[in-house]
Amino acid sequence: MDTDRPALAIDIGGTKLAAGVIEPNGRLIAWEQTPTRRDLDSEQLWRTLDGLISRALEGAKVSRPQSLAGVGCGCGGPMEWPSGLVSPLNIPAWRAFPLRGRLEDRFPGIDVRVHNDAIAMAAGEHWRGAGRGTSNMLGMVVSTGVGGGLILEGRLIEGTSGNAGHIGHVVIYPDDGPPCVCGGVGCLEAIARGPALVEWAQAEGWRPGQASATAKDLAADGAAGHPVGLAAMRRAGKALGIAIASAMYLCDLEVVSVGGGLSQAGALLFDPLEEALRAHTRMEFTKQVRVVPAELGQSAGLVGAAALIFAADRYWSGG
Amino acid sequence: MDTDRPALAIDIGGTKLAAGVIEPNGRLIAWEQTPTRRDLDSEQLWRTLDGLISRALEGAKVSRPQSLAGVGCGCGGPMEWPSGLVSPLNIPAWRAFPLRGRLEDRFPGIDVRVHNDAIAMAAGEHWRGAGRGTSNMLGMVVSTGVGGGLILEGRLIEGTSGNAGHIGHVVIYPDDGPPCVCGGVGCLEAIARGPALVEWAQAEGWRPGQASATAKDLAADGAAGHPVGLAAMRRAGKALGIAIASAMYLCDLEVVSVGGGLSQAGALLFDPLEEALRAHTRMEFTKQVRVVPAELGQSAGLVGAAALIFAADRYWSGG
Repeated sequence: MDTDRPALAIDIGGTKLAAGVIEPNGRLIAWEQTPTRRDLDSEQLWRTLDGLISRALEGAKVSRPQSLAGVGCGCGGPMEWPSGLVSPLNIPAWRAFPLRGRLEDRFPGIDVRVHNDAIAMAAGEHWRGAGRGTSNMLGMVVSTGVGGGLILEGRLIEGTSGNAGHIGHVVIYPDDGPPCVCGGVGCLEAIARGPALVEWAQAEGWRPGQASATAKDLAADGAAGHPVGLAAMRRAGKALGIAIASAMYLCDLEVVSVGGGLSQAGALLFDPLEEALRAHTRMEFTKQVRVVPAELGQSAGLVGAAALIFAADRYWSGG
Repeated sequence: MDTDRPALAIDIGGTKLAAGVIEPNGRLIAWEQTPTRRDLDSEQLWRTLDGLISRALEGAKVSRPQSLAGVGCGCGGPMEWPSGLVSPLNIPAWRAFPLRGRLEDRFPGIDVRVHNDAIAMAAGEHWRGAGRGTSNMLGMVVSTGVGGGLILEGRLIEGTSGNAGHIGHVVIYPDDGPPCVCGGVGCLEAIARGPALVEWAQAEGWRPGQASATAKDLAADGAAGHPVGLAAMRRAGKALGIAIASAMYLCDLEVVSVGGGLSQAGALLFDPLEEALRAHTRMEFTKQVRVVPAELGQSAGLVGAAALIFAADRYWSGG
């Protein structure tokens, strides 16, 4: 897009809401975030977001909506795409909430684009992160859930309903895997999402009964040598490696970027991931793939939301 | 391609070589085939193919190469793509054989395009078969091997090295699955390819020690009620369903076309396939996918090879 105007970028997840103002080159000028409160109803949550947006715009000294190139937004799925009716699994207050429409009302005359948050993160990593300059990338988010977005031949792949990239539900253990929130069995997400790892570890005797224990604690204990923490990271890493191997055979990728909280566990996670990946990718063409931690870290979602505006030829086909 | 000239189409597999002449609308005018003899060396096999091509052209009354719109060829993988140096797993006589170059020498001045045979079949099914009019399709071949090709957003996906679509090596049973010829463990192909099914069935007591027994026999015995034949088809169908579920989540497909010899087993294979697929595709967007037998049957490979010429905008990006 030929513009020097900045974009408003929004990232809506089950844990936090974030809004920022981003330059056409991907630089974040100003941003704000706030926890996603569970006790709010649909309209209260919208007003929280609205206030957050106002503060981000003020922080970037954007006084008139007309000085924005557009509004890009990543939001937890599922959603109707591209209409932007969102029903985020982890935000029960919003069910078929017309997020795109409400943002269009808030910014009349300005392009508003809403996509799945994992897809936005993948777009961000491809545009300005670990996938920069590559043509075939899978961007993953390993956190409360496991999501992803697929860039093939330089463009974001939407699929039939805008849902391509759902690597969290690639099947790892079809018979004896744990049940998944999706209703299936043995999906990657059922094994590797943070809460599933905590549950598994607690059943193995780690911090039994401690309701506040998190995957971050588990990774930290693993790093300090706790055997269940180590085993949990191996379990997650192995499942990730197997899923990436399957994705590699299907899509012939150059790079896989792994973001989200769990990706910060470092070698504890990435060593078993590589081991499983290499055990299951033996054909010559599969050996090229690089699996790396997301480069943009916390800001990948916002940068990717801006990519929906600034690099729409590659990341937005939703009209 | 704006032409009324026909194309020469070639399909090279471990079992047979086929050549045909195809009109721009996909209609097969004339074709010839011959077994792929194992006792020939590299040049003898080339001369066999050369003779077959001549007979097919004569059958279609094509006397001058200049009256061809192009030459499209599907060949068993792996291969260097798009240079067309082929090393088909099941044709040991050809290792880094310069198939594209030899065809270019045979047809000077005519466009020659060589791709993986499973990709050609997928292109054929999308162009003129079960995927006609859809944007997102996986074409599969279940035979001596298990291969595939991926059409997303209306175009054949090549991936980084022309190898996208290798669904045969999506992982089904990572820990306790059978070893695969690729060097991995528990791949779809290691379970569902014909010879693997026969081996499994023989270990279960079906036609023990009968070296000539084939997957076709096994399917026929299953259809006649033989419990091991039935169990073998269930085993293959289930593995196919799981792999398709993973592909569905990654690529958000509309249709999956299943061709190759084993696909002729009908409900014996497709019922357990559907059952496993539905158990592992529970999100709303995944329920749309249709899994159907390939429509073009035996001629899918030839029709797809012609698609590399007549619909190059969708199926050929190899230059």
